Amino acid sequence: MLGEYRDKVVLITGGLGFIGSNLAMRLVEEGASVTVVDSSIAGCGANPYNLAAVRDRVNVIPLDIADASDFASEIRKANVIFNLAGEISHIHSMQFPERDLQINAVSQLRFLQECVRHAPGVRVVYAGTRQVYGVPEYLPVDESHPVNPVDFNGIHKFAATMYHMMLSRAGKLDAVVLRLTNVYGPRMALDIACQGFLGTFLRRALLGEALDIFGDGRQVRDPLYVDDVVEAFLLAGLAVLPSRTYNLGGLEPLSLSEIAETMSREAGGVPLTYRPFSAERASIDIGSYCSDWQRIHRELGWKPATSFRDGIARTFSYYRSELAHYLDPGNPDAVCRLPEHHGARHRLALIAV
Amino acid sequence: MLGEYRDKVVLITGGLGFIGSNLAMRLVEEGASVTVVDSSIAGCGANPYNLAAVRDRVNVIPLDIADASDFASEIRKANVIFNLAGEISHIHSMQFPERDLQINAVSQLRFLQECVRHAPGVRVVYAGTRQVYGVPEYLPVDESHPVNPVDFNGIHKFAATMYHMMLSRAGKLDAVVLRLTNVYGPRMALDIACQGFLGTFLRRALLGEALDIFGDGRQVRDPLYVDDVVEAFLLAGLAVLPSRTYNLGGLEPLSLSEIAETMSREAGGVPLTYRPFSAERASIDIGSYCSDWQRIHRELGWKPATSFRDGIARTFSYYRSELAHYLDPGNPDAVCRLPEHHGARHRLALIAV
Repeated sequence: MLGEYRDKVVLITGGLGFIGSNLAMRLVEEGASVTVVDSSIAGCGANPYNLAAVRDRVNVIPLDIADASDFASEIRKANVIFNLAGEISHIHSMQFPERDLQINAVSQLRFLQECVRHAPGVRVVYAGTRQVYGVPEYLPVDESHPVNPVDFNGIHKFAATMYHMMLSRAGKLDAVVLRLTNVYGPRMALDIACQGFLGTFLRRALLGEALDIFGDGRQVRDPLYVDDVVEAFLLAGLAVLPSRTYNLGGLEPLSLSEIAETMSREAGGVPLTYRPFSAERASIDIGSYCSDWQRIHRELGWKPATSFRDGIARTFSYYRSELAHYLDPGNPDAVCRLPEHHGARHRLALIAV
Repeated sequence: MLGEYRDKVVLITGGLGFIGSNLAMRLVEEGASVTVVDSSIAGCGANPYNLAAVRDRVNVIPLDIADASDFASEIRKANVIFNLAGEISHIHSMQFPERDLQINAVSQLRFLQECVRHAPGVRVVYAGTRQVYGVPEYLPVDESHPVNPVDFNGIHKFAATMYHMMLSRAGKLDAVVLRLTNVYGPRMALDIACQGFLGTFLRRALLGEALDIFGDGRQVRDPLYVDDVVEAFLLAGLAVLPSRTYNLGGLEPLSLSEIAETMSREAGGVPLTYRPFSAERASIDIGSYCSDWQRIHRELGWKPATSFRDGIARTFSYYRSELAHYLDPGNPDAVCRLPEHHGARHRLALIAV
């Protein structure tokens, strides 16, 4: 980065989460002044321990981005805003669609309106998702692929993507969207089964348990190591952008079997088992996926640098000493039990303020 | 239609509005049993007079689609649901984004969940919009054109479009989306300036006032007569659908000047004036637009049948006798003044139910 972030003021939403906290730590290293906003909504992956090593060098605001007017002064000061707050679980979104709409669309809308008000034209880097593409019509998937999400999460993340793009086209923000693929690495939540198979595999491998593969194991994913994602966010935070939407993707497309085998080896040989998809999972399964990340390579010089084998080795190394901080003792089976007030018993309404 | 709707039970959301009421009247003619749901949200175009001629043959439920659990029995009975409830004003959506989000996304989400619950697999025909495409990358615009809306209305209408498509892909509904272009004809609201230029032109021409053209008048639109839209809804309500998304478009692409001249002639020669875009309008202007409607022509046999000249003649004929029912005496300048409780002083929140 050649010191480009030294003394820059950055705001990170969702900064207690997996990717946000890794980004915060790197920005502290780079000499930036870092403020994190995170309301620690249950099920979204926030973990205060993620920032333990830099806790005295990061300003943490425990607020929801929907209440951005309460931290307007932080928005005004920011040179760059990294916007990673959100819910990523496809399964949660199908169980509680209004909760997902609140977290991923309503809150983003309100946050961005405050950004427009207090920091017009500010660079915002949004953590989008490959989930907006749905079942790939071709591989690898580039940014021109049709948008066709298979779950509420993809729909609402795409609405938030469009908020960023539309407000930028109108000159009110200067946003860029990074569409992430399956990201893994230190600080990912291990106690939220519904956040994706990589966290589940990791947790089970670390505990010496068998890895359950749904389907025949030949489905492809392109896992991306978190340090590579952080690098992309740093580049996108300051770069002159010919485009506004960029896919990120891993170095190698790998089958689920290959992914599981690599993790099993790293764990000293836990068994693999193959299981049929449940109806719930099958209905939102997207088949094989890998990203075409040539656009960001061409325009910003980014590429994934970490092989899956190396990334998994570093990930295991982290969790071997820190595992206790990532297992919820109240949730031993890693079954998602969302608190009732984030679930089905609540609904969205227009209320007076 | 060859009697295909005789004794069919149909539910029309937004049935007091412009297109919904024309559809309701036609379905009554066709012998269907028609229930209309409309909460008459200010600014969205509902007008009880629209159904005056068939009032004793239509069941009107004055509820919001967000409260669909209160009319679940009507959903259960429906053979076909025509889903036209919504806000179409681009300008309203930029003034009050959360209001637009509530009407076009939250309410649709809640309504569709009740449809899934009480009428799984039911055919739902949703009134989408060409606004989701944004500034056209090519003309005419087909269904493969990238989604790139220029305002909150386009974003939220696309979210609702994706709700319909995703739930259908998952086998929970059997929905089809008709993407409408600029529709005109009898029963369109004339007292909501922010609903588009055709209503504004019509109102001013009928009152003998000059027609203000923004820009140089060479922008293209493809106005579509409401009877042609109704025909498409009827076809989509019962057809076997090779695709799920269809553009509708007018018979002829016309410049704004040609459109204004036709209306001026019909009105006995009101003057045309050319004005620069306001900044507000320019920021959400999409330039020239016309739809490629070959897909629905090929698959369902639909095509626009009414020339703009004929459609405008019929429209003027209607309003010459009915104009008083379409001018809000409290709103003589047709300036949009949304009630405060639908505007900026309210916000969306998750509340207990």
